Amino acid sequence: MTSQFRQVALIGKYHAAVSHGAAAQTRAALEDIGQFLAGQGCEVAIERETATSTGIQGYPALDLPAIGAGCDLVLVVGGDGTMLGVGRQLARYGVPLIGVNQGRLGFITDIPLDYYRRILEPMLGGAYEEDLRSLMHAQVFRDGQCMFDALAMNDVVVNRGATSGMVELRVEVDGHFVANQRADGLIVASPTGSTAYSLSAGGPLVHPSTMGWVLVPIAPHTLSNRPIVLPDGCEVTIELVSGRDASANFDMQSLASLLHGDRVTVRRSEHRVRFLHPVGWTYFDTLREKLHWNEGN
Amino acid sequence: MTSQFRQVALIGKYHAAVSHGAAAQTRAALEDIGQFLAGQGCEVAIERETATSTGIQGYPALDLPAIGAGCDLVLVVGGDGTMLGVGRQLARYGVPLIGVNQGRLGFITDIPLDYYRRILEPMLGGAYEEDLRSLMHAQVFRDGQCMFDALAMNDVVVNRGATSGMVELRVEVDGHFVANQRADGLIVASPTGSTAYSLSAGGPLVHPSTMGWVLVPIAPHTLSNRPIVLPDGCEVTIELVSGRDASANFDMQSLASLLHGDRVTVRRSEHRVRFLHPVGWTYFDTLREKLHWNEGN
Amino acid sequence: MTSQFRQVALIGKYHAAVSHGAAAQTRAALEDIGQFLAGQGCEVAIERETATSTGIQGYPALDLPAIGAGCDLVLVVGGDGTMLGVGRQLARYGVPLIGVNQGRLGFITDIPLDYYRRILEPMLGGAYEEDLRSLMHAQVFRDGQCMFDALAMNDVVVNRGATSGMVELRVEVDGHFVANQRADGLIVASPTGSTAYSLSAGGPLVHPSTMGWVLVPIAPHTLSNRPIVLPDGCEVTIELVSGRDASANFDMQSLASLLHGDRVTVRRSEHRVRFLHPVGWTYFDTLREKLHWNEGN
Amino acid sequence: MTSQFRQVALIGKYHAAVSHGAAAQTRAALEDIGQFLAGQGCEVAIERETATSTGIQGYPALDLPAIGAGCDLVLVVGGDGTMLGVGRQLARYGVPLIGVNQGRLGFITDIPLDYYRRILEPMLGGAYEEDLRSLMHAQVFRDGQCMFDALAMNDVVVNRGATSGMVELRVEVDGHFVANQRADGLIVASPTGSTAYSLSAGGPLVHPSTMGWVLVPIAPHTLSNRPIVLPDGCEVTIELVSGRDASANFDMQSLASLLHGDRVTVRRSEHRVRFLHPVGWTYFDTLREKLHWNEGN
Repeated sequence: MTSQFRQVALIGKYHAAVSHGAAAQTRAALEDIGQFLAGQGCEVAIERETATSTGIQGYPALDLPAIGAGCDLVLVVGGDGTMLGVGRQLARYGVPLIGVNQGRLGFITDIPLDYYRRILEPMLGGAYEEDLRSLMHAQVFRDGQCMFDALAMNDVVVNRGATSGMVELRVEVDGHFVANQRADGLIVASPTGSTAYSLSAGGPLVHPSTMGWVLVPIAPHTLSNRPIVLPDGCEVTIELVSGRDASANFDMQSLASLLHGDRVTVRRSEHRVRFLHPVGWTYFDTLREKLHWNEGN
Repeated sequence: MTSQFRQVALIGKYHAAVSHGAAAQTRAALEDIGQFLAGQGCEVAIERETATSTGIQGYPALDLPAIGAGCDLVLVVGGDGTMLGVGRQLARYGVPLIGVNQGRLGFITDIPLDYYRRILEPMLGGAYEEDLRSLMHAQVFRDGQCMFDALAMNDVVVNRGATSGMVELRVEVDGHFVANQRADGLIVASPTGSTAYSLSAGGPLVHPSTMGWVLVPIAPHTLSNRPIVLPDGCEVTIELVSGRDASANFDMQSLASLLHGDRVTVRRSEHRVRFLHPVGWTYFDTLREKLHWNEGN
Repeated sequence: MTSQFRQVALIGKYHAAVSHGAAAQTRAALEDIGQFLAGQGCEVAIERETATSTGIQGYPALDLPAIGAGCDLVLVVGGDGTMLGVGRQLARYGVPLIGVNQGRLGFITDIPLDYYRRILEPMLGGAYEEDLRSLMHAQVFRDGQCMFDALAMNDVVVNRGATSGMVELRVEVDGHFVANQRADGLIVASPTGSTAYSLSAGGPLVHPSTMGWVLVPIAPHTLSNRPIVLPDGCEVTIELVSGRDASANFDMQSLASLLHGDRVTVRRSEHRVRFLHPVGWTYFDTLREKLHWNEGN
Repeated sequence: MTSQFRQVALIGKYHAAVSHGAAAQTRAALEDIGQFLAGQGCEVAIERETATSTGIQGYPALDLPAIGAGCDLVLVVGGDGTMLGVGRQLARYGVPLIGVNQGRLGFITDIPLDYYRRILEPMLGGAYEEDLRSLMHAQVFRDGQCMFDALAMNDVVVNRGATSGMVELRVEVDGHFVANQRADGLIVASPTGSTAYSLSAGGPLVHPSTMGWVLVPIAPHTLSNRPIVLPDGCEVTIELVSGRDASANFDMQSLASLLHGDRVTVRRSEHRVRFLHPVGWTYFDTLREKLHWNEGN
């Protein structure tokens, strides 16, 4: 069977500081996958920074915008963090992504390097499940001016400084006052992010097809300040009312030193990320595996 | 201003065993509201059992199907439980409901009897917020035969017998295996039900506009069995694997003595319930009030 | 090295309905251990019901009181449930217990059958850690009369009927009013029980050396009704205020049909159970293993 | 009745930045209480900084060590924070404290300014409940050297930097390895601190007479990393394994910039703080009031 995806880009552990040994492993994996893809009739390209860091030659090196504009499929070799970073940057192009994982499988990187060939081959032939993930578009406003703009796949977090006490946050949804919350912080998580920080802070799991966000307070002063699920069509605004050294974080990228009156807004991005999985993949199998359900205890 | 709703039905605390004093109060409230509605140009009817239990005469007495078929608006005097019961039974007719509360305001009965006139008058004139609530259609199957069929506005619960240990439940979503859960039970809650039993069991708040259900295990054996939010378009199946004297409950109406292999299915009903609220009403104001947020502490 | 324990009793899975295959396994295990103990210089006895159910002969068969009165050590072959049951019944005699587990290790049965010899030998020689567990003495009073009296190692639970709603429970500590709680039920757990039902219901882990109980409400209506740790010297009283078909449970043994006004009291028993563990055993190693801490995820 | 406490010291909102209006209120309250105490036969002194900040004259001004050494009773006018700060500093002297609160009553400052006279008079005459609170002695070690030493009444917290990810902490109890925890941080709370930050992070309430601490992870990565109650006779050690900009906090006083390998130890102080309450006071009444139990909802 020949690949239905003609132009395929390879991306390795992106922007990450990796050890020499790990880099060598990634290089070997990428070269092996590159040969495999060529054998399937694909025209293979490699992401520019991946090429530089691994030293792989022989394929055209493209930056992310060029990959987004010109490729039919992106193969990411790495963990969930790498996949999320690449997904966020390629979201506007609509190009689908497949994740191959060198270590313990992740929530979205679910193809083990050890036997990727027999899984990838049918997928290239068109037999796959599509898994669309919504993105958050977050902005930070100071005195009415937008001073920061970012997409997030997992979460937008406002949290307190390390050595100060709680922050007080005023939360609004579509302009309606929700509450003034005193807490270590507040997480707005997408379904994708519901298995990450949000889960640690007490949030529910949210199936990726759910059209919703979840607001999860971190160590809230008021015990009835429970996680709230909202339709993802609404706009959430978080205003810093009090607290020193608070910061806003977008998929762990930080904007430090929020001032009182700064407002962080979160709404649904017009873009979605397309992940491809093998036929038969279900979100629940992944959950069960990752959360150790149904293990004897 | 004259009422835009011509035929209006009055319903008092429905099917409830109430004390003599409370019945007298309800009768006085209903008579007062009846006169007010007539003064607004409405043709008033009264629900048959309400008429019987209160002794109110002078209005045509209709049963619920007749109210659903013939009325433009239903005014319920009572608490959230009464409102939910009436809403569930009238859902198929699409007639809107307004709740007047004699005591502490509820999540959905938000008009205080003390000054209902000044709130109802503009609502009758057409100034209101519409609040649509999804319903669950639940069925119980034994050996492939449907042996029970019910609508639920709050929740469908499968739980253990009182003096037996945990039940083991096999959960599927759209035919996909989710997990075998050992617990006291499992709740499938609608957004409306997310502030009821589900909240006590550790579930998140779910905004009524969210197109989702939440699955909440009750005292689960496996600590990572956390609440899961699902799109409400999917079908949830709960099969009793082991446990004596388990029961299924639909808005607190019980079907006792489930047998091993019995399957409870939950999917979205084609009907929705229409609640009307005063202009300016928001779900968040209700939450804040009911959950005692923003009280000094 | 010769055993410092002269009279040693063997007890198999106690009072349990076990399959034929499991019974054969238990018999083989007990016979092997019996021979081993005799080889260490012990005089071996066997618990009467164990002898009957396994058919083991050749050792004197004693009932539990005789074992408690006359033996220096009891060896239990089974899981945590068996060990707790035996421990509760032998508590008054002060005889120490060692647990050998045929399957997955438990919280208190921590010696694997597969290589018990090399672990037991030094323990018989006097090299062991002693692990004292406190017991609860529970009573149920109706109209001032004690109508039930039991010891519990894990927990005392008052909970609602299967198809009724919440119970309302009035909680007092040493005669001081604590709260009226509406919930599915209330657990009073010992440190030993803190890893059982209490943990599922949201209670903390409590180290066995802590002189305390924990009160854990099950699905409480009031969100601030959080678990409370109390010194174990105090007396806890739980009175059923409302709710049909409520029951009291003592280590899962049930007393059904509590009436309104019934009072369940819990105080520390004068007895404690003595478990012996291999040198180097720590409670934390067991916790880490059983709760899957420090597994990659 | 004449006071059994002869030398009584007055302390106002200690070390706090308060508004001019609040300072005037505190001054008026202190002067009123001073006159009252003199009328009860007490010799009144005033804490030196309180005298300076309020301008109160006419009483000898003493610093805290002099108060501890020479006074029989300390009257603190302020909130829980003030009371904790004073209590911690006077712990070594054994002098008892009474808290008078100008605003909403606290957990330990339970005498309302509005009618303090009728409550204080019998207490001065010897009719009071004594409430002893244990203290934590915390130290920070770097390369084996103690670089910080503090007492804490509420909690010792190690937490992550504001814009870095989780910390990894190695926890030991009495030298036994407990777990490597990845989390936002870890709280070691006393019973007194169990109603503060620990409660927000999911910890249980701990009655002040319980001889225990509670370890509460903040937003732990591993869902089974639940709060653990330990006997307060043990020593807890928390070592920073990884994480940038972590800090240690002792009753909210911060030691920033922990390095990898730094070890924070917590053990019971030899001192305890003595609070006095009116006869009939119980901890449960305070809990019920502060946590809004038994309010209709």
